[in-house]
Amino acid sequence: MPRQLHLNAFLMNTGHHEASWRLPESDPYAHVSLAHYVNLARVAERGTFDSLFLADGPQLWNNLAQRPAGALEPLTLLTALATATEHIGLIATASTSYNSPYNLARKFASLDIISGGRAGWNIVTTAGAEAARNFGLDAEPAHAERYARAAEFLDVALKLWDSWEDDAIVADKAAGVWGDDAKIHPPRHAGTYFSVQGALNVPRTPQGYPLLVQAGSSEDGKGFAARYAEAVFTAQQTIEDARAFYADLKARTAAAGRDPEHIKVLPGIVPVIGSTEAEARAAEQVLEDHIVHTHGVGRLESLLQLPSGTLELDSELPSDLPPEDAIEGAKSRYTLVVELARRERLTVRQLIGRLGGGRGHLTFAGTPEQVADAIETWFTQGAADGFNIMPPVLPSGLDAFVDHVVPILRARGLLRTEYGPRRTLRERYGLPRPANQYVSTPATGTPALV
Amino acid sequence: MPRQLHLNAFLMNTGHHEASWRLPESDPYAHVSLAHYVNLARVAERGTFDSLFLADGPQLWNNLAQRPAGALEPLTLLTALATATEHIGLIATASTSYNSPYNLARKFASLDIISGGRAGWNIVTTAGAEAARNFGLDAEPAHAERYARAAEFLDVALKLWDSWEDDAIVADKAAGVWGDDAKIHPPRHAGTYFSVQGALNVPRTPQGYPLLVQAGSSEDGKGFAARYAEAVFTAQQTIEDARAFYADLKARTAAAGRDPEHIKVLPGIVPVIGSTEAEARAAEQVLEDHIVHTHGVGRLESLLQLPSGTLELDSELPSDLPPEDAIEGAKSRYTLVVELARRERLTVRQLIGRLGGGRGHLTFAGTPEQVADAIETWFTQGAADGFNIMPPVLPSGLDAFVDHVVPILRARGLLRTEYGPRRTLRERYGLPRPANQYVSTPATGTPALV
Ligand SMILES: Cc1cc2nc3c(=O)[nH]c(=O)nc-3n(C[C@H](O)[C@H](O)[C@H](O)COP(=O)(O)O)c2cc1C
Ligand SMILES: Cc1cc2nc3c(=O)[nH]c(=O)nc-3n(C[C@H](O)[C@H](O)[C@H](O)COP(=O)(O)O)c2cc1C
Repeated sequence: MPRQLHLNAFLMNTGHHEASWRLPESDPYAHVSLAHYVNLARVAERGTFDSLFLADGPQLWNNLAQRPAGALEPLTLLTALATATEHIGLIATASTSYNSPYNLARKFASLDIISGGRAGWNIVTTAGAEAARNFGLDAEPAHAERYARAAEFLDVALKLWDSWEDDAIVADKAAGVWGDDAKIHPPRHAGTYFSVQGALNVPRTPQGYPLLVQAGSSEDGKGFAARYAEAVFTAQQTIEDARAFYADLKARTAAAGRDPEHIKVLPGIVPVIGSTEAEARAAEQVLEDHIVHTHGVGRLESLLQLPSGTLELDSELPSDLPPEDAIEGAKSRYTLVVELARRERLTVRQLIGRLGGGRGHLTFAGTPEQVADAIETWFTQGAADGFNIMPPVLPSGLDAFVDHVVPILRARGLLRTEYGPRRTLRERYGLPRPANQYVSTPATGTPALV
Repeated sequence: MPRQLHLNAFLMNTGHHEASWRLPESDPYAHVSLAHYVNLARVAERGTFDSLFLADGPQLWNNLAQRPAGALEPLTLLTALATATEHIGLIATASTSYNSPYNLARKFASLDIISGGRAGWNIVTTAGAEAARNFGLDAEPAHAERYARAAEFLDVALKLWDSWEDDAIVADKAAGVWGDDAKIHPPRHAGTYFSVQGALNVPRTPQGYPLLVQAGSSEDGKGFAARYAEAVFTAQQTIEDARAFYADLKARTAAAGRDPEHIKVLPGIVPVIGSTEAEARAAEQVLEDHIVHTHGVGRLESLLQLPSGTLELDSELPSDLPPEDAIEGAKSRYTLVVELARRERLTVRQLIGRLGGGRGHLTFAGTPEQVADAIETWFTQGAADGFNIMPPVLPSGLDAFVDHVVPILRARGLLRTEYGPRRTLRERYGLPRPANQYVSTPATGTPALV
């Protein structure tokens, strides 16, 4: 069997294109519709995707005038989807900057148990002052500090998830002994950002802990990924950049003493699918025609950390933008956008059009064959272990992908044709169940909760 | 139609009796079994209960040796149950001492939307140093401070839940205007415990916000309830105490400027049901015989804030216990336990036996008729608006209640015979949908999300 492609469905209300909600087919209340998400999850499961993914930030991301704002909180929504699906992984974004390790570790452990081992955590540090101001801070913590806190957060969370050995439950009714307290290991952690004494109040879960996913591509972000991440979402505009990123991340992971096979790299792709190339381009044009460009200016100024009113729609970006080093927000996205604009000499209006589809992710318009070819090329040429599929319009874009691209990928032997027996998310991604850091010789036999 | 009884099913792994897990019928893994809870939820729905309820504390509550420890996190579990049920309310406990208002407000809003308006929040301040030490503190915050923080937490949460007007979403596709930013009201809250600037990233929900439930009966607890709570869980050992508590709470609520009908008082009852009285007593005895009394000593010492080794199994409590004022933990539970022991001159061993069933809640052993009589008496004599049903063994104790007591209550016209059309949890409890604090004249028509 050839190496298998991993597919993740990145779900976002009416789709990733910012104007998608304006299409006649779109439900403007999709962002709070359980039925909408249940349908999407089932379509993705029909396409034998590895997982679903929801982005998140603890703030109202944009003005209401512009496009759908607000969302169901990802862990909550994915828990509801756990009971509506059987096989697919459930990856929720949650911030290390604005959560407590004890609370978050419990929630992911609970979801992992409820879903039978299908939980994943997209670990983000959350850029921006708006989120900070919802949590008692005046300003965004510095980028390096956010990542330092993230690393300590992970250390604590891993201790909590390992705080029960797999076989801590004895269940000896006759003797009146339910569990073995010697198999409980309170973290007793006292660090720079956190002090957490006690064991988790959830047993060790089917996966041990959720699949750890990471999505920041700055230097610090890549360092963090090499140390902790098992899957990485990334935005890449060209195959050259993607190959360089892929090789770099695998090398860093090896340098961190880990098996580079144990980190899966998943670039995002926004597939605009038509039965002919012309049809795909026309669909792209319809979406672009629905963009309100003036709305995009403010968002671009905020990403580039420019004062409001700096950018002009029909000019290029200013030539004196600061280097990535000077950016405290989303560093790698900043560089990607600036390089895209410079490389193609785009005006602000054109840049907004280009970002409208996927906020920096690669938009690829074509026939199902062409989309499958692009995926196969990146996959076989060292640029990807799989893809983050980001349909521009939902649900139709996911339907189109599953109905027309998936069969081609299957015919080429790149994608499973069925799920087979139930597996954990980590098993789907070809990753081992992590050992418990407190156990030198793992228990024999199957752990009770697996 | 006579005044209607409200029933809440308080679910807890194998049941409320601490020895329930040792019975042959009990599943020692019930605490992490979704199937177990789905079954319980459906049984409660068969009994047309108003709601389900899960207790919680962010710490490992007891030693594993003693009895089942750990649990699925309540908001997560209730979200999974939301999709497995249709009518029943879902009340999750969450602590104001160890959460951020922004995160918690989002989770409850998301659950309220997903469940079609069935979310409730049991607001607790969380006693004990163990929880504190999982969140960076060295010791439990003082009781008064916990309640001061709880009040500010509620003020912020209410602002967040009101931060979207019901009709903020316009969805004008042609004009490209999705929502009306003038209908968004960021809290801009800067207080003693919290500073929260921005609006919630979830629209206003079917209920406006979750049903607000409270469960502490100290002076501060009752003050808090009078101001915010719409339902109150309470542990009462005698009808006299329960009537006094009921009258006091209704009076305080009126004094706080609220309609006393808008706070529902629900004492806990542990029904031990037998087809004859002797059978019920025998069932109680079987449970008591399974208690390991030495385990109870440490728990009692901790509740009474006594040094370990103070209590002797076959003596009464020491006579020089401090007054409730001196207790920083669970004040009202402290007083209830001390008064119960003194009133009935119980030894420590007997007290542990009495608390084993319901940790201070009234245990009532009898036939279905006798249980229904007790419920009717308390309900009609000014002691209760309904009950928190706490089966000693699960699922069998809930089955018994629904199959044998519920039909009697229905025959007496005290309990609905069917749910009828879908309603919100607040409607089931006969409470109005709250107005939005930022809107002087409510929007006409049905809000989009209701
Ligand atoms: C596919 C993808 C999804 C992402 N989702 C989120 C998200 O939901 N929330 C978030 O705060 N950051 C998210 N990010 C990460 C931000 O882009 C990242 O925080 C930002 O780039 C800052 O990290 P960096 O400075 O290391 O690049 C995502 C990134 C990618 C590639
Ligand atoms: C039925 C019932 C359920 C309760 N559940 C919880 C709970 O889940 N978590 C918690 O911290 N406190 C819970 N309590 C409340 C504690 O008993 C309360 O925090 C304690 O009594 C302290 O409040 P007080 O000092 O105002 O009495 C519950 C109380 C009752 C009556």
